[in-house]
Amino acid sequence: MAKAPVLTPQADDFPRWYQDLINKAELADNGPVRGTMVIRPYGYGLWERMQQEMDARIKRAGAQNAYFPMFIPQSYLTREAEHVEGFAPELAVVTHGGGKELEEPVVVRPTSETIINEYFSKWVQSYRDLPLLINQWANVVRWELRPRVFLRTTEFLWQEGHTAHATYEDARAYADMIHREVYGDFMVNVLAIDVVLGRKTARERFAGAINTLTLEGMMGDGKALQMGTSHELGQNFAKAFHTQYLSGEGKQEHVWQTSWGSSTRMVGGLIMSHGDDNGLRVPPRLASVQVVVLAIKGDDAVVAKVREIGAALEAAGVRVVVDDRTDVPFGRRAVDWELKGVPVRIEVGPRDLEAGTAMLARRIPGGKEPVSIDALTQLVPAVLEEDQALLLRQSRERREARTVDVTSIEEAVEAAATGWGRIPWADLGPEGEAKLAEQGVSVRCLVAADGSVPEADDQSGNIAIVARAY
Amino acid sequence: MAKAPVLTPQADDFPRWYQDLINKAELADNGPVRGTMVIRPYGYGLWERMQQEMDARIKRAGAQNAYFPMFIPQSYLTREAEHVEGFAPELAVVTHGGGKELEEPVVVRPTSETIINEYFSKWVQSYRDLPLLINQWANVVRWELRPRVFLRTTEFLWQEGHTAHATYEDARAYADMIHREVYGDFMVNVLAIDVVLGRKTARERFAGAINTLTLEGMMGDGKALQMGTSHELGQNFAKAFHTQYLSGEGKQEHVWQTSWGSSTRMVGGLIMSHGDDNGLRVPPRLASVQVVVLAIKGDDAVVAKVREIGAALEAAGVRVVVDDRTDVPFGRRAVDWELKGVPVRIEVGPRDLEAGTAMLARRIPGGKEPVSIDALTQLVPAVLEEDQALLLRQSRERREARTVDVTSIEEAVEAAATGWGRIPWADLGPEGEAKLAEQGVSVRCLVAADGSVPEADDQSGNIAIVARAY
Repeated sequence: MAKAPVLTPQADDFPRWYQDLINKAELADNGPVRGTMVIRPYGYGLWERMQQEMDARIKRAGAQNAYFPMFIPQSYLTREAEHVEGFAPELAVVTHGGGKELEEPVVVRPTSETIINEYFSKWVQSYRDLPLLINQWANVVRWELRPRVFLRTTEFLWQEGHTAHATYEDARAYADMIHREVYGDFMVNVLAIDVVLGRKTARERFAGAINTLTLEGMMGDGKALQMGTSHELGQNFAKAFHTQYLSGEGKQEHVWQTSWGSSTRMVGGLIMSHGDDNGLRVPPRLASVQVVVLAIKGDDAVVAKVREIGAALEAAGVRVVVDDRTDVPFGRRAVDWELKGVPVRIEVGPRDLEAGTAMLARRIPGGKEPVSIDALTQLVPAVLEEDQALLLRQSRERREARTVDVTSIEEAVEAAATGWGRIPWADLGPEGEAKLAEQGVSVRCLVAADGSVPEADDQSGNIAIVARAY
Repeated sequence: MAKAPVLTPQADDFPRWYQDLINKAELADNGPVRGTMVIRPYGYGLWERMQQEMDARIKRAGAQNAYFPMFIPQSYLTREAEHVEGFAPELAVVTHGGGKELEEPVVVRPTSETIINEYFSKWVQSYRDLPLLINQWANVVRWELRPRVFLRTTEFLWQEGHTAHATYEDARAYADMIHREVYGDFMVNVLAIDVVLGRKTARERFAGAINTLTLEGMMGDGKALQMGTSHELGQNFAKAFHTQYLSGEGKQEHVWQTSWGSSTRMVGGLIMSHGDDNGLRVPPRLASVQVVVLAIKGDDAVVAKVREIGAALEAAGVRVVVDDRTDVPFGRRAVDWELKGVPVRIEVGPRDLEAGTAMLARRIPGGKEPVSIDALTQLVPAVLEEDQALLLRQSRERREARTVDVTSIEEAVEAAATGWGRIPWADLGPEGEAKLAEQGVSVRCLVAADGSVPEADDQSGNIAIVARAY
């Protein structure tokens, strides 16, 4: 008799598989206030590693971390017209503080363009103060009507970058650099998700931006997930908040700005990109636990050996956990590590010890084989690199296999039932886009004919990538 | 003519000196909502280094990071009677979300004991699940009537640890270990503040705790700052939230808990411990910038040399910044780095280059001397270690010099005018403590006769340390 599946199979019910995995791998729980989430230690460990990798890239891009208050006077939001229109329906409002009704209600930040511009306008005086490159790691709140853990939550964790530049060109180049060298590099080379880098249409732009660059990943069910965005804000916020500088020619000029964000939503993207019916599969470069060394039985020699292997791997630069909880049945522990997606398991029992071997179980390609214990410190780093590359290849192959060229709205909707469609933007346009939207399909982004990011919506040869999306 | 002081001198007006320093060293600004603050990049850099050092110690203590929602249903707060009484006056309340009035208002966490217990009660089933050791890095809100940047702000950043144990003894030992090995070790050996480790009296305990351990630092004006606390919660929250486990004997038992926190208030403590009339002095082990290498003039050879020195120091493991902004006057840059408290400045001009020397300026002991450029990579790490030790010694000497033994309430109040008083707790007691409080003086903590942390308030020989406090 086949054993009962640990999770609802993906093919039966993808959303339920996702929720099962999050529960059983102990990634997160629903919070008590609708739409909020509790990120459990193993899930938070994934986010911590994302933060480390992203933060290093953000610092290399020259931005410095800072922290702005989460309470924003309601009046700030209204200064940029499109911005308030975009965010008003999602705001959480604090009306009472310290036992009294507040004179002016404050909103909990849904994003920080407004409050940051209030300070940029004080800090920026002359062209010498530019570029001003700031990032913050923070929680934000957007009231969600249809919440889903990690993907759409009322409170989520993110980084938001905010920069001010002297010229349109500088701001544009910076938004583009963040898009490629921070987000693109991280998502492709660490998350192993073969994201498409493109440009949002006017309809899908950030509220208050003149241009939004996006990274779209294809999930296991063929739907798209927006994994991060980088915006050119033009001078919209600068004008609303009087953020000006004295140019080298002695003139007062408004700054040109960017903002860019990525969030705990990426954890959801990771799950839906790489997970399978046995659980999560974590790319080795991201994994907080790359290898678990398991003692099969509570034999003293076995326990000593797994600790020795663990220490040797740690010395070789591998992130390793030793599981010698031999009072918990081995099968249960093995299933649990598989659910959690740890790339490599090294299993050692009394018989292995005699033979000088261990069982090497690989979560990513699957399969198990006995290997010499002495060879592990050589073998494991190579296996981890191989598995990292394999995940990215699988992500790319899925995207390629499930993306089709289409020429009509009907075909586009059909393509979006199982994957993505590619349709010339000249054939679709804003009107076609509106019609697609009525059927729950959106233009995820525009890409140029050669696959690069277009300079403008109406650039000749632009292709629209259309899909259902999270 | 003496040059005008950059800051209000400490001796003239200590609170104004503090605020001047925060402004001029660009550490923080006041936020738009009363009591909130904007932490600017240099100030945030101090906090980031605190986080790194603390986080490593917290992980060594076996706790794992997680994240709980900041929105807590109002009803949770009321379940533990003392807790709600302590925090009710300071709460921020969200009454509207997503454009609608909420059915139940939610509070923004002032601390997370209640929401965390709600989840602990789900996650803990048997003794095998214990100890459960959780930490979170988060923002919290306590409405402040008399805010002061870093010291008392409506929103602040902190870490809060929350643990559950099978026995009273285990919880007690863990709270004590955090007190000494996480907080004590960090504050003494990284912040270079000679904190006193002690026990709070019943009057000063955390709302809902059975015991609060504290670390008190003496600031430059002789006042005390509570730098961190570690609480034994007993079974108070466990009973309110039904956090129970099945013991090895098959009985349902309530867990025993701890919680412990330290916050951005430590940045204020750092400033007021080590700052002087020229600005901040940052302990080298904490400093995100340990050394700045300055080009005095914009000569090509000078700029090349400062970059070379910077690279060599970085290779030697020093956190270094190269300041070759020769379009800004050297004097202004030197004052700025002094304000920011960077421990070592290495200044190079054309004449130095000829002589193969650089000027080594030391912020902590003060003074400047020419040194051979070739010797810098040897010399600088040794200087940094020396300066770290010097700051701690100065902190200890100040505390010793400004602490006096007293025997009456009158003497205690007098001692607190310039520093700390030590008075036998048996002579003071809760009644004497209340009388002191009327004069703005509090018992910061109790210490045992031998300087250790007392096991109980009424332990024979206990000494009360009394002071005015931030």
